[in-house]
Amino acid sequence: MLKENPLILITNDDGITAPGILYLIEVVKRITTRIVVVAPDKPQSGMGHAITMNSMLRLIPKEIDGVEAYSCSGTPVDCVKIGTVKVLDERPDLIVSGINHGSNSSINVIYSGTMSAALEGAIEGIPSIGFSLCNNSIDSDFEPVLDYAETIIRHELKRPIQGISCLNVNFPSVSKELIQGIKICRQADAIWEEIFEERNDPHGNSYYWLTGKFVNREPQAEDTDEWALKNNFISIVPVQSDVTNYELQDSLKTLENE
Amino acid sequence: MLKENPLILITNDDGITAPGILYLIEVVKRITTRIVVVAPDKPQSGMGHAITMNSMLRLIPKEIDGVEAYSCSGTPVDCVKIGTVKVLDERPDLIVSGINHGSNSSINVIYSGTMSAALEGAIEGIPSIGFSLCNNSIDSDFEPVLDYAETIIRHELKRPIQGISCLNVNFPSVSKELIQGIKICRQADAIWEEIFEERNDPHGNSYYWLTGKFVNREPQAEDTDEWALKNNFISIVPVQSDVTNYELQDSLKTLENE
Repeated sequence: MLKENPLILITNDDGITAPGILYLIEVVKRITTRIVVVAPDKPQSGMGHAITMNSMLRLIPKEIDGVEAYSCSGTPVDCVKIGTVKVLDERPDLIVSGINHGSNSSINVIYSGTMSAALEGAIEGIPSIGFSLCNNSIDSDFEPVLDYAETIIRHELKRPIQGISCLNVNFPSVSKELIQGIKICRQADAIWEEIFEERNDPHGNSYYWLTGKFVNREPQAEDTDEWALKNNFISIVPVQSDVTNYELQDSLKTLENE
Repeated sequence: MLKENPLILITNDDGITAPGILYLIEVVKRITTRIVVVAPDKPQSGMGHAITMNSMLRLIPKEIDGVEAYSCSGTPVDCVKIGTVKVLDERPDLIVSGINHGSNSSINVIYSGTMSAALEGAIEGIPSIGFSLCNNSIDSDFEPVLDYAETIIRHELKRPIQGISCLNVNFPSVSKELIQGIKICRQADAIWEEIFEERNDPHGNSYYWLTGKFVNREPQAEDTDEWALKNNFISIVPVQSDVTNYELQDSLKTLENE
């Protein structure tokens, strides 16, 4: 049963003025009128699960398209924490994060502020979804994926995911006719091979820019999110907060006797 | 077989001047002479797996106790990336991160810069260990745990962990006689219940400080790191980069037909 007029908290990591969050608000408006946005006041891509402990946070009331909104000076995870604890009077029925400008599939999930916000929601026991479009451009076309986002949100409200987990949803950046549907996947084994570009400042001191090349280490594996996206499916990976590698526990037992 | 004089990269999240990293250098010196330190130039606790994409990085050569060292303006994960790609000419045999001032057990692993640095090493295929002492004080007594840290490092060099995984080692903050040994564990299900302290600045505008209370949601579970530490064991949890919740995949299959 879909609760009538659920309370939905929206956040992202590209910042409160990013086009992606406006599209997500548009989708959520189709489902409910009880919407609150708490999103970073500046881009926070690549912030992972960072939280702000050593400086203070600001929370500035805004309004976006008639929706109650707050810009927060912290990270995406801060936004979820302050949103649920300080801004909302009651527990939200759902947290949605995004729509991110750029992929959060495979290893990107670890670096992603968008997905860390969703995972933080899961840790707090709230059904949560992170949405990303595999296109970094500020002018990306989000229209083809909005109906799918709505379907996934409605499904999650009706049948919330169990355990301390959230959904990592990635959309291929193609026209609607080309989208092959939704595929439940696992996180592909991929890596960023870093390149540090070295430059000199006007005072002769060197500095570095982090760039990198994305490498999928298992391009043939059809059960991965990377394969799904490459074949124009929408990938959904259930993501958990428990990072214990249970299979390796036995192999470490020798340490207990040292 | 322990490789003679292995190359070991040391980092942390408390910053290059924190006492904890000095103790870790002391331990590593017992094992090898080939040591390079690349650590943040300022405290970076709670930075999770954040990386620096939108600003540049500085790398300043230092020397600590006769060891080649660099302070980096970025996050702990940046330190591992720039350390392995730019500073070192060859692949390190091991990356060690810490010793952190404060626990990184249970859910703390997600927020921890120390552990994210170790996990980044694992993603790059390098055996990696994060060490933490369950004591936030700057004056913590690290002496009781140094022999154990040496044992764990030697074990990892001899029998490196498999898969894309690293070790999360937490030490109880007690005298050496009280330490009960090493215990291989899983990550406890715990949460930080946040409290936001609201204050007003001299101009009358409000701001917030994030604080919180740690709550272990399964205090009786003897296979968890929290239980081990509470009972004066050193906890070791193998930690992986794959956050897929495989058990939940089937329950989501209905989404593929919507």
